[in-house]
Amino acid sequence: MPNPTAAMLVIGDEILSGRTRDANMHHLAQELVAVGIDLREVRIVKDVPQAIVQAVRDLSGTYDHVFTSGGIGPTHDDITSDCVAEAMGAGIDVRDDARALLEAHYERSGRELNEARLRMARVPEGATLIANPISAAPGFTIGNVHVMAGVPEIFRAMVASVLPTLTGGAPMLSQSLRVERGEGDVAKPLRELAQAFPDLSIGSYPFLRDGMQGTHLVVRGTDPARLDEAMNRLSAMVVDG
Amino acid sequence: MPNPTAAMLVIGDEILSGRTRDANMHHLAQELVAVGIDLREVRIVKDVPQAIVQAVRDLSGTYDHVFTSGGIGPTHDDITSDCVAEAMGAGIDVRDDARALLEAHYERSGRELNEARLRMARVPEGATLIANPISAAPGFTIGNVHVMAGVPEIFRAMVASVLPTLTGGAPMLSQSLRVERGEGDVAKPLRELAQAFPDLSIGSYPFLRDGMQGTHLVVRGTDPARLDEAMNRLSAMVVDG
Repeated sequence: MPNPTAAMLVIGDEILSGRTRDANMHHLAQELVAVGIDLREVRIVKDVPQAIVQAVRDLSGTYDHVFTSGGIGPTHDDITSDCVAEAMGAGIDVRDDARALLEAHYERSGRELNEARLRMARVPEGATLIANPISAAPGFTIGNVHVMAGVPEIFRAMVASVLPTLTGGAPMLSQSLRVERGEGDVAKPLRELAQAFPDLSIGSYPFLRDGMQGTHLVVRGTDPARLDEAMNRLSAMVVDG
Repeated sequence: MPNPTAAMLVIGDEILSGRTRDANMHHLAQELVAVGIDLREVRIVKDVPQAIVQAVRDLSGTYDHVFTSGGIGPTHDDITSDCVAEAMGAGIDVRDDARALLEAHYERSGRELNEARLRMARVPEGATLIANPISAAPGFTIGNVHVMAGVPEIFRAMVASVLPTLTGGAPMLSQSLRVERGEGDVAKPLRELAQAFPDLSIGSYPFLRDGMQGTHLVVRGTDPARLDEAMNRLSAMVVDG
């Protein structure tokens, strides 16, 4: 059975404007590889309702899972929850279970659960809450869409909460070989290897270091024996070639 | 006149698999802000023909410019040029102008222009070449799609080649204020500010540092006087509030 597929949707004005670098994408990609869920696409959109709704619809219709990051805080530009509800055809309002989590958290911390913060208890009907052990305001899963916070520490905690609830596949394994040669010198053996091992994914990632060309050759697949076989063949080809 | 819009398409198996962090997106976002081109969306897809063709069609039909990164090297998985040609309805083959650039480069460096490397001279009919001062193999512009390499040093050089050929808008300026308070404490003044300055974009980006909540408040716009005015108002609100 092929591994489940996934996409990530980043609600990311701060990334599109060049203010910050994304960190959540890299974390999620690594976590999904480990549990055998195949991350096929990432989209980053602005916090504009139409853009978010459309992206959620596209991605949730195409992949087995969609993971979103960002836009579920208390401010006027936090519109992800409402947009996901609209995209999934669900109603949304402040929910008692989410409000109870916030009340307990703010009571403990002696801060006020004001009107703005109460917006973080808006959760679509029928959604399951995703635990947020750091700042209480929950994420949620509705259908195949998992809605999580953008603050990296909280995103990670939510990913840790939600992944164990999903059925993954065979973990994707990889092996790599670093060669001090340009891609053009290894293209032919790589192509032959890809033809000989159609069950594996063979990639090459060129780099420049101090003006010298080099290439990382990466073989990916789920069967460790096949990976070993391919890497042995590749080493022999590249060393002889 | 509103600023031109843009999207970026990253052909990025190595990012989706968690192997590497993207660097090109952050660079392009910063460069586009400076020239007044509004980056609205980023997509990262695998090097699968259908995914690339579909994304190029979607994005080039939606935005004024599309910038792509990756997949134009000499190996079997470098399929971006052919996919862009297909998406734009153009033929593609080895082109004499691109071949001449490669011949000169490999002759100078004493390396062989083999069959694999010659693939890097495949350029769609009607496309304009984008100079690559580092390793010669050119990028190209076809219609509103600018196709560039994925190696960060080369990507940057190509961005520097292509941006001066485009008509930008008013550079987007930003000012920010760091407050040691959670988003929930500043949500109300922020909302009021957004209503009072509909011509500006007002964002808030929460962070955790040593377990303490803080927020970066960011105001963006093209008119420096309006930015100053909004920041003064914001400071007063947040300090008083």
